[in-house]
Amino acid sequence: MRTLKLTLAYDGTNYVGFQRQINGLSVQQVLEEAFAPMMPEGVEPPTVAGAGRTDAGVHALGQVATVNVDFAHAASAVQRALNVRLPPDIRVIGVVDAAPGFHARFHALGKSYRYRMATTAVLSPFDRHFVWHAPERKDIARMREAAALLVGKHDFASFQGRGSTVRDTTRTLHRVELRELPGEIVLEIDGDGFLRHMVRAIAGTLAEIGGGRREPADITHMLKARRRAEGGLTAPAAGLTLVSVKYP
Amino acid sequence: MRTLKLTLAYDGTNYVGFQRQINGLSVQQVLEEAFAPMMPEGVEPPTVAGAGRTDAGVHALGQVATVNVDFAHAASAVQRALNVRLPPDIRVIGVVDAAPGFHARFHALGKSYRYRMATTAVLSPFDRHFVWHAPERKDIARMREAAALLVGKHDFASFQGRGSTVRDTTRTLHRVELRELPGEIVLEIDGDGFLRHMVRAIAGTLAEIGGGRREPADITHMLKARRRAEGGLTAPAAGLTLVSVKYP
Repeated sequence: MRTLKLTLAYDGTNYVGFQRQINGLSVQQVLEEAFAPMMPEGVEPPTVAGAGRTDAGVHALGQVATVNVDFAHAASAVQRALNVRLPPDIRVIGVVDAAPGFHARFHALGKSYRYRMATTAVLSPFDRHFVWHAPERKDIARMREAAALLVGKHDFASFQGRGSTVRDTTRTLHRVELRELPGEIVLEIDGDGFLRHMVRAIAGTLAEIGGGRREPADITHMLKARRRAEGGLTAPAAGLTLVSVKYP
Repeated sequence: MRTLKLTLAYDGTNYVGFQRQINGLSVQQVLEEAFAPMMPEGVEPPTVAGAGRTDAGVHALGQVATVNVDFAHAASAVQRALNVRLPPDIRVIGVVDAAPGFHARFHALGKSYRYRMATTAVLSPFDRHFVWHAPERKDIARMREAAALLVGKHDFASFQGRGSTVRDTTRTLHRVELRELPGEIVLEIDGDGFLRHMVRAIAGTLAEIGGGRREPADITHMLKARRRAEGGLTAPAAGLTLVSVKYP
């Protein structure tokens, strides 16, 4: 058996997320089916493991997935064959042979996400699937003050989406930065791991703080409270992109 | 009667072009229908005149359209009402009152277009509707040499799409520039007017010259020949964007 490490970019607009779901088409399903022409006669396509789930409508510039295969095709040939088969909203941007047993999720040391908020009165038609349209005036200094309070090791239970079964809700954020572009605020977050909806809850909460509906210091209370009801708004999925996954 | 000047941005992917066609949905039709709620009882929505047709799949950052209306709504209220009604792939980015009789097409002095070519081996899923994937290696110096020969007043008959009924095929190009970005070449063209498929034929021809299949000096022969068969490849619509329209 051979382990391949795939790096993927996708426009998540038309998918239920990376992971297989019964209610619609996932990136995982489409990717697994794209292996079919490479499989020996009678052998089913392999299961692909992603580094992270990504919600419906969330995008990726550098999602990582691993797959165990038996065939001898060169990694570069696998990349080409997958891209021929995949729809243009999913692209394999790299394939390499990894150490046998290497696993995209279990061996991930961290992830980087980007969340884009458009602050223009009218949303560009070209951004409609890739940003949250939040035109309310925002004070970025207040957002940065709040962001700084999120950096470090904290219990992020107040920023975890309902319905998650994760027990240990402590995570470490290495970077929570806000960049101001014309008509746009971009949030960049790096951390060792992320709870369900965590980046979106942070983005929504920072937007509320920027808009004056909450105070930067509220972050401290939210982290202490450890209850979702204390956290802020969950920002829409479309603004979120998984930028990269870090490995040893 | 009052004349309103509308500035529009649209993602042309899902439209047959700006102008009404019998074979599908046009930007013009959707825009005219968006006027319905503002019209007095029993009055049909007005006809909107665009500065240029734009082909199916071509985009706009600054298309201009004029419309004659009788109602008293303020220009800013018209903009808001249209954007509420329009799908998110068409946005009205400005509405102003113009001199009565002002016409988006007849009074246009020139237009600026942008054509994007992706030169990466794998096309980003986020660019798939907005660039031409032309990964063949290109010599931009050759393309610039050819572009310089297109600037000025010429008969562009060799760059006019078949089926056009335009008689005078002389146009003046003020600027034909190529910018090199990582993994991308961007063509910027300003002129007093454009023939059918003219920017796409220029983009395709420049790509052929960049790839070594034609010589920069071929431009001179093409301009002299005045026959479409002498011109180069027509590049796909998706790469093209109408950037702005110039008026006195």
